[in-house]
Amino acid sequence: MRRSERLVAMTDYFKENPYTHISLPFFVKWFGAAKSSISEDLDIIDAMFEQLGIGRLQTSAGAAGGVRYIPDYDMELSKEKIDEIIELLEDPQRILPGGYVYMSDLLGDLKQLRIIGKMFGAAFKAYDVDYVVTVATKGIPLAYAVADVLRVPVVIIRRDPKVTEGSTVSINYVSGSSRKIQTMVLSKRSIKENSNVILLDDFMKAGGTIHGMVSLMNEFNATVKGIGVLAEAEDDEEDRRVDDYISLLKFQEVNEREGRIQVARGNYFE
Amino acid sequence: MRRSERLVAMTDYFKENPYTHISLPFFVKWFGAAKSSISEDLDIIDAMFEQLGIGRLQTSAGAAGGVRYIPDYDMELSKEKIDEIIELLEDPQRILPGGYVYMSDLLGDLKQLRIIGKMFGAAFKAYDVDYVVTVATKGIPLAYAVADVLRVPVVIIRRDPKVTEGSTVSINYVSGSSRKIQTMVLSKRSIKENSNVILLDDFMKAGGTIHGMVSLMNEFNATVKGIGVLAEAEDDEEDRRVDDYISLLKFQEVNEREGRIQVARGNYFE
Repeated sequence: MRRSERLVAMTDYFKENPYTHISLPFFVKWFGAAKSSISEDLDIIDAMFEQLGIGRLQTSAGAAGGVRYIPDYDMELSKEKIDEIIELLEDPQRILPGGYVYMSDLLGDLKQLRIIGKMFGAAFKAYDVDYVVTVATKGIPLAYAVADVLRVPVVIIRRDPKVTEGSTVSINYVSGSSRKIQTMVLSKRSIKENSNVILLDDFMKAGGTIHGMVSLMNEFNATVKGIGVLAEAEDDEEDRRVDDYISLLKFQEVNEREGRIQVARGNYFE
Repeated sequence: MRRSERLVAMTDYFKENPYTHISLPFFVKWFGAAKSSISEDLDIIDAMFEQLGIGRLQTSAGAAGGVRYIPDYDMELSKEKIDEIIELLEDPQRILPGGYVYMSDLLGDLKQLRIIGKMFGAAFKAYDVDYVVTVATKGIPLAYAVADVLRVPVVIIRRDPKVTEGSTVSINYVSGSSRKIQTMVLSKRSIKENSNVILLDDFMKAGGTIHGMVSLMNEFNATVKGIGVLAEAEDDEEDRRVDDYISLLKFQEVNEREGRIQVARGNYFE
């Protein structure tokens, strides 16, 4: 197979298998090419991935040597893309009764969602994570987009137990904003003991939900390595029960009467 | 930029933007290369994608000419991969009290989930779809995996209305297996009138949930172009309320007492 063909096949393979260790003999056998040719291919791909701002190939030498694709997402590109999302969100027609903001279409738009996933993937790329954990329902798309980049399993906490989950662990927690008591349930077999996890949710006000998720992770002896929220409400900052997190967006003002939404970049960009 | 570099960048671009029309001048400008060189690049990529069984580039001539990547997933490869999933599922430890089967880990495993998404993407690739529609909670990962391939928005039907959805349309329906009355709710602004949709769910027994989804789509004047379920229960075939659907897996037997699960390929492979 010619170099040009190999480069197409290898680029596809790396994009389908991020964070996966691939031995050089695997490529040698697949393409019937010399190891030196494969090494040159890898150099070309690595240089191009770097130029595109989408990550690097990490090579390791020795008997167990090989290569891994570590995805990244360039900070300049991230700023440009988040500003496009901010513009979408500042549409006054998104304001719902009670000062809520309609965001479901954004989380349903695969193009935007993939970009959001890449940003969190870049933010958490050094964390050595075993699971991405979220809570039903709105956090699920976000968690999948991030897990697709970090290539670890998604674990979904539910609000109610379901028979198809098997035996579960549940906790009660106080919702930060409404002060209501709520429940979270997670299947016992979903997380192995002593795992490293990242918590993700679409929106954080006072942080009660995230706080509940942290408590539930304690029950599984899991270590919370990072917390990510797509958007936070700036005016709840003082009462917040969680302080170490990454946000991509900040809702600064939602004025229902005057039909005005003001959104800024989140703390990831500070 | 050299051909080898262009091929890496273009392969990445097509994989990030399936079903998206890209004009040749876009590539000409990006790479500072002649149109004839770009055309040769496209031929190389198209031939390699075909060989890999991951789809084709569709070129159109004329003033509005350009190229689109239509993903596919080879049937032989699909059979091989579904058999691997069947082997995972036939583990007796998955049997839950009541004869249910634990599948949450499969839907949380991005590698498997992406493959499942590619199979449905191939099954529905000729359908000209506007939305992929599912119902919370278990269907969500599946819907995202398919929408990622078809590159259309995901719409999530909920069991309960939520304030952040705005005004909603709801229907009541009778669950096929338990004969209980249940509710489905969908935000009014989630689907445009006269859209084409695909319905997806993780599991189908008597088909009550899918039947409910079809009724709800009628309220939005949407046309259901296709129905996909990851797994169906074979013993409920007679009572089934839905007959035109694609399944990837069939549960033939779940014997709780003897600890035996028997799973076969679904009707997609027939």
